[in-house]
Amino acid sequence: MSYYKHHVFFCTNQRDDGARCCGASGGQAMRDYAKKKIKALDLNGEGKCRINSAGCMDRCSEGPVLVVYPEGTWYTFVDEQDIDEIIERHLQHGQIVERLKI
Amino acid sequence: MSYYKHHVFFCTNQRDDGARCCGASGGQAMRDYAKKKIKALDLNGEGKCRINSAGCMDRCSEGPVLVVYPEGTWYTFVDEQDIDEIIERHLQHGQIVERLKI
Repeated sequence: MSYYKHHVFFCTNQRDDGARCCGASGGQAMRDYAKKKIKALDLNGEGKCRINSAGCMDRCSEGPVLVVYPEGTWYTFVDEQDIDEIIERHLQHGQIVERLKI
Repeated sequence: MSYYKHHVFFCTNQRDDGARCCGASGGQAMRDYAKKKIKALDLNGEGKCRINSAGCMDRCSEGPVLVVYPEGTWYTFVDEQDIDEIIERHLQHGQIVERLKI
């Protein structure tokens, strides 16, 4: 069994050249929001969920992106409502959020 | 199918308080080494492998750690020889390196 039921990686990469990049396009802010929310919902920890920041995952043009493992589901997102939906539907109920899937 | 056949996350976290932490215990250096080696072996890219840095994955006492998804296999490591073995046996041949598994 997986150490974390859902291990979520947000690209929080920031590029020095000012090019479009997940971190500056909401990746960092939404990772911070998700981490706080997962803790508030008591979903954080072994056997449950882990929210992680990650470096560039090389899907920049589709960003900002996150990936949920072990499922390997990739999402893009705009705002806190999108993150709420991913948490509630995917992390809590195991359903893919098709409208945000890439 | 998974976007990356093997998506590898190295904890490269550095703690300000000087406490034991993956990044300073080889996580950063071995991530850089693995990234270079994967490129040299032409294993990098969609359908193949991706080497990523990640923030704290909360297994500090077992660190330095990396995790390979979608398998969800966690490893600890000491030096380049350990990384070579993980790349050759796990990433190239799909075999678990039991001696480094946590």
